[in-house]
Amino acid sequence: MPRIVVDVMPKPEILDPQGKAIVGALPRLGFTEFSGVRQGKRFELTVDGEITEAVMAKAREAAETLLSNPVIEDVVNVELVND
Amino acid sequence: MPRIVVDVMPKPEILDPQGKAIVGALPRLGFTEFSGVRQGKRFELTVDGEITEAVMAKAREAAETLLSNPVIEDVVNVELVND
Repeated sequence: MPRIVVDVMPKPEILDPQGKAIVGALPRLGFTEFSGVRQGKRFELTVDGEITEAVMAKAREAAETLLSNPVIEDVVNVELVND
Repeated sequence: MPRIVVDVMPKPEILDPQGKAIVGALPRLGFTEFSGVRQGKRFELTVDGEITEAVMAKAREAAETLLSNPVIEDVVNVELVND
């Protein structure tokens, strides 16, 4: 089903305690390959009807105003996914 | 910087209270285009050195065992991103 995927990540300069906790846990579980982890959010928005450019523009607006906190987070991706 | 992106979403049959809250908030903020929202997680893993197929295999293993809870979540994507 077509849907809009919005990806939000903590800004690089913002401390990410969840990511830090995962980095600490990885080697204890045998994963020594990874030097850093950041945890963000992924949203999937569904739409009844066609996803037009106007709908994508509204999704970008919602991403910046409701789905992310622009003080501490960046919207890194807003894309249409068909599968 | 090259990094590995892991996307995790709640399984379709699992209630997603955060997504439900967002669906309720959207029309109050003037966004009437969206019929559903699911909220998941996005992880960005960094690696010192080259990201080989062996490292990607470890990332997929970490995604299934540490980054997601397989009872309630699906790993929907593990990919190498260069930018």
